[in-house]
Amino acid sequence: MIKIGVITASDRASAGIYEDISGVAIQETMRDYLKSAHEIVYRCIPDNQDTIEETMMELCDREGCCLVVTTGGTGPAKRDVTPEATENVCEKMMPGFGELMRSVSLQYVPTAILSRQTAGIRGRSLIINLPGKPKSIRECLDAVFPAVPYCIDLIEGPYLECNEEVIKVFRPKQS
Amino acid sequence: MIKIGVITASDRASAGIYEDISGVAIQETMRDYLKSAHEIVYRCIPDNQDTIEETMMELCDREGCCLVVTTGGTGPAKRDVTPEATENVCEKMMPGFGELMRSVSLQYVPTAILSRQTAGIRGRSLIINLPGKPKSIRECLDAVFPAVPYCIDLIEGPYLECNEEVIKVFRPKQS
Amino acid sequence: MIKIGVITASDRASAGIYEDISGVAIQETMRDYLKSAHEIVYRCIPDNQDTIEETMMELCDREGCCLVVTTGGTGPAKRDVTPEATENVCEKMMPGFGELMRSVSLQYVPTAILSRQTAGIRGRSLIINLPGKPKSIRECLDAVFPAVPYCIDLIEGPYLECNEEVIKVFRPKQS
Repeated sequence: MIKIGVITASDRASAGIYEDISGVAIQETMRDYLKSAHEIVYRCIPDNQDTIEETMMELCDREGCCLVVTTGGTGPAKRDVTPEATENVCEKMMPGFGELMRSVSLQYVPTAILSRQTAGIRGRSLIINLPGKPKSIRECLDAVFPAVPYCIDLIEGPYLECNEEVIKVFRPKQS
Repeated sequence: MIKIGVITASDRASAGIYEDISGVAIQETMRDYLKSAHEIVYRCIPDNQDTIEETMMELCDREGCCLVVTTGGTGPAKRDVTPEATENVCEKMMPGFGELMRSVSLQYVPTAILSRQTAGIRGRSLIINLPGKPKSIRECLDAVFPAVPYCIDLIEGPYLECNEEVIKVFRPKQS
Repeated sequence: MIKIGVITASDRASAGIYEDISGVAIQETMRDYLKSAHEIVYRCIPDNQDTIEETMMELCDREGCCLVVTTGGTGPAKRDVTPEATENVCEKMMPGFGELMRSVSLQYVPTAILSRQTAGIRGRSLIINLPGKPKSIRECLDAVFPAVPYCIDLIEGPYLECNEEVIKVFRPKQS
């Protein structure tokens, strides 16, 4: 079974102060994109770096998620530590994801440069940070997801099939 | 009182061999942008990494500057160490600033990729590296400054008001 | 004598399983670009991080190459470690090279964001990672090479003269 991890890092959402609309938005987007049968493993946790790292390790190592998508905690504020957690648990960083997501978001708001979102590889899992706002989440996923299934092929994860009418994924011919 | 730090890192300017036109250019740009009353705290120092780090810490921690802007020392030469100093004193790096400034400068010169300028957060201060040449300074500031007041809001600094006819700052509606 | 290093990091090419078309493509591109007399120092090695680091140090320190160009090992797979090797042997990283190369490659394939290629300075040598595929190599070199001779000037390397009808290099007037 293909498993996709979704982590919402938010002090307020995890305390029940407001609903986690962002986490829901990611789950809906995954259902839209993926033709392959899959299970979503969802966690909503506070902006605590240790907790974020432990949750990432749990979803990658014990749950075996080939993809872990986070939302929240990528800004400049004191409690924004999701990129640092990502860097700590990953063996390889993937700078192209953050660069592309920021350049896409810049078309909408000049404050896109404040997002420190990144991506990286832990074992056979790809971890991607998304912004906190639901609208930006879809814009960013639409930009980077075409490269995700091939990335997961390269790290020896499962073969993801997608709904071509929703998202055009790209797998180059192997040399 | 709102304080803005300006650091010129230049062996030759700090030795009085030539005038610090770049430091002057930043101060003029700040006066143009800012409607809020503010004080500029200016330092012109040699390209020595320890000195740059100590000056950044002085302006952030003791002077309480909410914004510290540097010029000089971002190239590939041996004495260019401003980005390394910035990374050493910051708790959080803000890669989006460097990416956007390089992509803006690339519209003018292909050597823009040689600039290693970055930005980061130290406590309640935002530190931004600018290039050394006065013309590039304004181009880069015009590109990133629209996001600066909101960034300073997020790190609990003072509320900066700007001259809207000079620079259009953006503050997203809080969720 | 001007020396240019070319390193192919590839388990299969170094084992003779297939021909190193990428290493050949870089050498041809260098001959196209450079009017200055030069010698290519070429190595084809496995994707082993220690071996890559030692080869980079050999070409920079003992061979005295002012420019070392690598191909291969920049993806997300387990054996892709060229960017990590580059970061380990360099004193200064040059993020603008990777950013520009990825944004150029993105015009052709959405999987360009999977390339983790970077560049950096070791002593008087500039090290640049290129992608593994011959077609992408030329696209990336055409984008970044206009800034390379000036970069080598700044790190006190030899003065590279190029064939202006093939590649337009840029050297800003010194201030």
